[in-house]
Amino acid sequence: MSITTEVRTVREGAFGPATQLVCRECGTTRELGPHYACHECFGPLEIGYEFGQVTREQIEAGPANIWRYKALLPVPDDIESSPNLEPGFTRLLKARNLGAQLGIDRLWVKDDSTNPTNSFKDRVVAIALSAARELDAKVFACPSTGNLANAVAAAGARAGIRTVVFIPSNLETPKQVNSAVFTENLVAVDGNYDDVNKLASEIAGEEDGWAFVNVNVRPFYAEGSKTLGYEIAEQLGWRLPDQIVIPVASGSQLTKVHKAFQELVTLGLVEDKPYKVFGAQAEGCNPVATAFKDGVDAIRPVKPD
Amino acid sequence: MSITTEVRTVREGAFGPATQLVCRECGTTRELGPHYACHECFGPLEIGYEFGQVTREQIEAGPANIWRYKALLPVPDDIESSPNLEPGFTRLLKARNLGAQLGIDRLWVKDDSTNPTNSFKDRVVAIALSAARELDAKVFACPSTGNLANAVAAAGARAGIRTVVFIPSNLETPKQVNSAVFTENLVAVDGNYDDVNKLASEIAGEEDGWAFVNVNVRPFYAEGSKTLGYEIAEQLGWRLPDQIVIPVASGSQLTKVHKAFQELVTLGLVEDKPYKVFGAQAEGCNPVATAFKDGVDAIRPVKPD
Repeated sequence: MSITTEVRTVREGAFGPATQLVCRECGTTRELGPHYACHECFGPLEIGYEFGQVTREQIEAGPANIWRYKALLPVPDDIESSPNLEPGFTRLLKARNLGAQLGIDRLWVKDDSTNPTNSFKDRVVAIALSAARELDAKVFACPSTGNLANAVAAAGARAGIRTVVFIPSNLETPKQVNSAVFTENLVAVDGNYDDVNKLASEIAGEEDGWAFVNVNVRPFYAEGSKTLGYEIAEQLGWRLPDQIVIPVASGSQLTKVHKAFQELVTLGLVEDKPYKVFGAQAEGCNPVATAFKDGVDAIRPVKPD
Repeated sequence: MSITTEVRTVREGAFGPATQLVCRECGTTRELGPHYACHECFGPLEIGYEFGQVTREQIEAGPANIWRYKALLPVPDDIESSPNLEPGFTRLLKARNLGAQLGIDRLWVKDDSTNPTNSFKDRVVAIALSAARELDAKVFACPSTGNLANAVAAAGARAGIRTVVFIPSNLETPKQVNSAVFTENLVAVDGNYDDVNKLASEIAGEEDGWAFVNVNVRPFYAEGSKTLGYEIAEQLGWRLPDQIVIPVASGSQLTKVHKAFQELVTLGLVEDKPYKVFGAQAEGCNPVATAFKDGVDAIRPVKPD
């Protein structure tokens, strides 16, 4: 695999309803593959779809994991038969006590810590793993500050694909141990997450056959976040919430949950209604919240450690 | 609540299909309540049932947690409406790679770490919580070496019932922290688990209104382990496994999974067949395995720390 325009043969239906990659900035399209940046404007590439008919009954008859939504994801129809961690369909808990304290009548918490490696990263990694497999990648990799490394190492181990995960060398030991259990190739980089990320981008650009889940197969990976939106709507009885609070993190999850809700509306699976999406950041590292409060567009990076 | 024979009024159907307590040693029966030792022979009390008709369809239509088996547990029919952690129906994963290494064709692993507080203890605590509620207990408590404390503290917090958890003071910090998040009453006892256990038994015997999940409401609590057996059979397509390996721990889970399998057979939910239940112990603390190997009945306690 490379980020060049080399033509590869992928099997029929390898990406399910996904048909192409589309640049979010300029709308330029290109074929599905390990590409993440538009060759016209360097904007981020996203997955484009042509959905068939999808019904609630069809989804409800599926397994109790993200593959119940496979008709809405860039994965093949036989995805369930490929070894994977089967993440998702985590509990949506009514937070009665917290709601009472906050004066909110109907407050729900999505407990994604019950995913196989205890974070939502198992969702996105599962889609990236499918893409890596269909693109015949030899190495399944990521730069990470911990949770993603765990998810990649565990998913790769289960699938029997070679994994390499890159982490900052000062990462706390328990997170390192969790990854080390599943991969022989845990690479501690002397630097911070930005440095680790740059190294990953360089390898992705220069080496063939490496699928970096959050770099060159990121457009596939990112679609995994949609499943949080699908599940919330289904678990609320096929209804959209009034308001939803989502961690900002890389900024991807907010947009993907919104995308999921819009897809459900378009497909007639939920009724359209207004809703608000809030992004939340922890006070210790809140560049987006700070910029928002200051009324500026430019985000000033915060570098913890 | 007390362990005296004081008569209490519990609401109709408070314990579902459970009808009485039965001594495992001498068969003496008594009414359902916070009792754990036979008043004739001091043998352990177990729950006795009169099951109604239970069908696979009825179970499959239930929620994706242990309450899908509520018709087989000592809980009321409206159990789902009482705030609880909704544990169970965890993934049964086909361990292809490990199976290949061990030369086993069909090897499955039950991943109970995806329960709300990351251990199977959420199952047993959920049943104990229901009993405590129906018996109008004022305090929900346990002696524990960590996992149980987490499960009790979290379940109590969700239910809005006062919790007190007793742990040995040398318990590793992360486990203490997990419990401390959910309860104001984390009591570190200067001693080992035996000492903590003795203290709990004394309080259970002397104080009114304390439900110690693994002491005076233990017969209810222990029934939660059956759900592991139900789930395995259902997830194997309503079939019993050929062999099953279970941690020995207190010895309860082995017997309860066997009990679950037998109930499923009796109720016609699975076909009867021979199967073997193996108990496993870690080498660092394996009194039962050692006794078995030495061919003796008497278990010599191992006291770690």
